[in-house]
Amino acid sequence: MNQRLHNLTNWLSDEEIAVAFVNSTENVFYLSNFYTDPHERLMGIFICEGIKPFFVLPQMEVNQLKDAGWSNDIIGYQDHEDPWEKINQKLASSKVLSNATVTFETEFLTYKRAQAFLNNFEQPTIIPLEDKLNQMRVVKEDEELEIIKRAAEMADYGVSVGIEALKEGITEMEVLATIEFELKKKGIREMSFSTMVLFGEKSGDPHGNPGTRTLQKGDMVLFDLGVVLDGYCSDITRTVAFQSVSDEQRKMYETVLQAQLASLEISKPGTRIGELDLAARNVITEADFGEYFPHRIGHGMGINVHEFPSMSHLNEDHLKIGMVYTIEPGIYIPNVGGVRIEDDVYITKDGHETLTKFPKELMIVG
Amino acid sequence: MNQRLHNLTNWLSDEEIAVAFVNSTENVFYLSNFYTDPHERLMGIFICEGIKPFFVLPQMEVNQLKDAGWSNDIIGYQDHEDPWEKINQKLASSKVLSNATVTFETEFLTYKRAQAFLNNFEQPTIIPLEDKLNQMRVVKEDEELEIIKRAAEMADYGVSVGIEALKEGITEMEVLATIEFELKKKGIREMSFSTMVLFGEKSGDPHGNPGTRTLQKGDMVLFDLGVVLDGYCSDITRTVAFQSVSDEQRKMYETVLQAQLASLEISKPGTRIGELDLAARNVITEADFGEYFPHRIGHGMGINVHEFPSMSHLNEDHLKIGMVYTIEPGIYIPNVGGVRIEDDVYITKDGHETLTKFPKELMIVG
Repeated sequence: MNQRLHNLTNWLSDEEIAVAFVNSTENVFYLSNFYTDPHERLMGIFICEGIKPFFVLPQMEVNQLKDAGWSNDIIGYQDHEDPWEKINQKLASSKVLSNATVTFETEFLTYKRAQAFLNNFEQPTIIPLEDKLNQMRVVKEDEELEIIKRAAEMADYGVSVGIEALKEGITEMEVLATIEFELKKKGIREMSFSTMVLFGEKSGDPHGNPGTRTLQKGDMVLFDLGVVLDGYCSDITRTVAFQSVSDEQRKMYETVLQAQLASLEISKPGTRIGELDLAARNVITEADFGEYFPHRIGHGMGINVHEFPSMSHLNEDHLKIGMVYTIEPGIYIPNVGGVRIEDDVYITKDGHETLTKFPKELMIVG
Repeated sequence: MNQRLHNLTNWLSDEEIAVAFVNSTENVFYLSNFYTDPHERLMGIFICEGIKPFFVLPQMEVNQLKDAGWSNDIIGYQDHEDPWEKINQKLASSKVLSNATVTFETEFLTYKRAQAFLNNFEQPTIIPLEDKLNQMRVVKEDEELEIIKRAAEMADYGVSVGIEALKEGITEMEVLATIEFELKKKGIREMSFSTMVLFGEKSGDPHGNPGTRTLQKGDMVLFDLGVVLDGYCSDITRTVAFQSVSDEQRKMYETVLQAQLASLEISKPGTRIGELDLAARNVITEADFGEYFPHRIGHGMGINVHEFPSMSHLNEDHLKIGMVYTIEPGIYIPNVGGVRIEDDVYITKDGHETLTKFPKELMIVG
C-alpha cells in the first residue's frame, strides 16, 4: 500500500474511525497517485475496517487506475449503473456497526453524496476528514518539493515570455495566448488557474479579466499565472511598467515590494502565520495605501493552487518546515491601476527559500 | 429583477418553499448573469420569503457583481470574516419559520455548507433544487442558442487548426498548443475541458492524455475540444487518418459515422432520450464492435459542458424543443486505436440542427 494511504489508515485505526470516504480529485491523487477529473461521475477511495481499501470509478478509467499503481480492490461502474448499489454492498460486507464513526471531506463532498454514504449507517458519528488531510498535505515531502520547484520554474518562464511579448498595441489576450503557447510547447498541459494579463487601469481590479485592451506607453502590466506539473501547482505574479513609469506608479510598486519583502523576512519556522499578513499590511498602510489591499497575504499551495492554510492576519497557526505557500501583497486603485508581487515560498530549517525566482526590481520594459 | 430569478421566485412561492440557496457558479450565472469562480470562498444567491433576494460574495468582487446588473441586496465579506454570521443574521430578519421548507443544490453544495445553512432552521424539510434548475436550463432561450452557436463555430475552427498543424513527427502537445493559441487569438479565454489530441494507439483510450507521442503515417488522430464563450460551452470530436488508412480503421470509422447518423436521425421532439443511445449502439454492436463502446451516447450542454440530461439508454425522458446536447459514439480498441465523432445538437420544432458543422466524411490528411 502507498505510504500515505498506510499512514491515513493507521490514523483511522488510532481514532477508532470505522470508515473513510475520500472523494476529491486532489486528496485521491495524494493517496493513490491517480489523478482524474471524473466530471459529474462518482469517484473515490473507501477505507473501511475489516476489508481492503477500495476505489470506485467509471469503468472506462479502471485501466488507468491500475497503471497508476493501485493494487487494492476496484469497483468500476458503467454510466447506466448506480455506483452506490455496489458501494453499499461492499460496505455491508465489512460488518461495520450502524453507529460507527465515519469520516469524509465535509468541505468537498456534496450533500447528496454525503446522504448516500451516511445512509449505510443508522446513527453515525461524523468527523470531518479535511483537517487530517490538510495536516498531512501541508508539510511537503522532498519529492513533492522537487515537483513544485519545477512548476515554479515554469511560472518564471511564463512571466519572461509575457514580458518579451509586450509591444505597443498588443492586446492582453494576445500576450496571454503567447505565454500559454510557449508553456504548452514545454509540455505544460494545464495552467493552475486562468492566466491573468492586465494592462493599465485593468490591473486596478484584483480579479480583472484579460480582454482586448491594447498596450500603451505608461501602462503597468500585471501577470498572474501558474502551471500544473505532475499534479502540483505554481503561482506567480509580477508587475512591470511599459516604456515609462509615473512617480505614483513607482511609489505603489516600491510599497508593494517592501511589503512583500517584510513578509518574506519573517517566513521561517515558528512564525505565527497571521504575522505574515500584518507585516505586509503595515508597510502598505503606512504608505497610505491601506484601503487598496483588500485580500489576504497568501495561501498554501501544492496539489491545489489554493490550499490549506488560508493566510489572513487572523491565522493563529505557526509556520512549519516543509510548508509551501504564496506571499502576494497588492495595491489596486480602481480605474487607475494596480501592482501585485507574488512568490511561492518553502519553509526550510533555517528560514525559507523562494521557489519563484523572477527578478522583482521595478522593470521598465519595451 | 432578472426574468429567470423572477420565475424561480414564483416557483418557490407556488411550492411553498421559504428559502432557496443557489451556490454553484453555473446556476448563479444563469440567475444573475454574473460569472465568477470564487475558488474556496463562499458565493451564492439566497432567495428568502419576506425579504429581497441577496447575493453573498467576497468584498473584492462586489463591484463586478454590480457591473453585471445585480440590483438586489449584496453581502460582501472580507477574507478574515465568516460570511455565515452575516447570512444567518439576514435570514433571521426574514422571520422564516423554524420548520420551513428549504431548497439548495444537493448535488453541488458541500455537506459542511449545507449544515451551516440548515442550522438556521430547527426542523427543515429539504427539497433538492437541481431538478427545477435543470428543467429551466434544459430548454435554451434564443439568446443562449445564439451564444452556443458561436461557441460551436469556434470548436469547428479549433478542429480545422488542429488538422492543418498535422505533420510527420509533430507531438500531440504541439498540435494541442497550436489549437489553443489560435483560439486565444480569437478571444477565447477558456476551453470547456482539457483539449484532447491523441495519435495512433493513444486514441484507443477514451480518456487518454495528450503527451509527446509523435505523429506517424497511418495514425488515426482524434481531436476532442470545446470552448467557453460568454459563459456557454461547445464540445466537438473529429477523428482523421494521417496519410493513409487501413481497412480496419476505415471499418471502425464508417461504423462510428453510421452510428452517429442513426442517432441524429431520430433527434427530434418527442423521441425517448434512451433511444438515441440505442440507435447508435445497435449499429456498433451489429458491426461487432459492441464491447468497444463503453460510454453513453452524450450529455446535455450549455453553461456546463456536461449538464442535464445524462443520455444513457436508460433515460426515459423525451426530447423537447430547445434542448442542446452532444451525440458522440465511439469505438476504442485498447493499444490499437479509436474513433469518436461528436456533434452538438439543437432540437427544433421539426427535428434538429447540428451546431458543429465540421465535415464528417473520413479525411486522409497530410
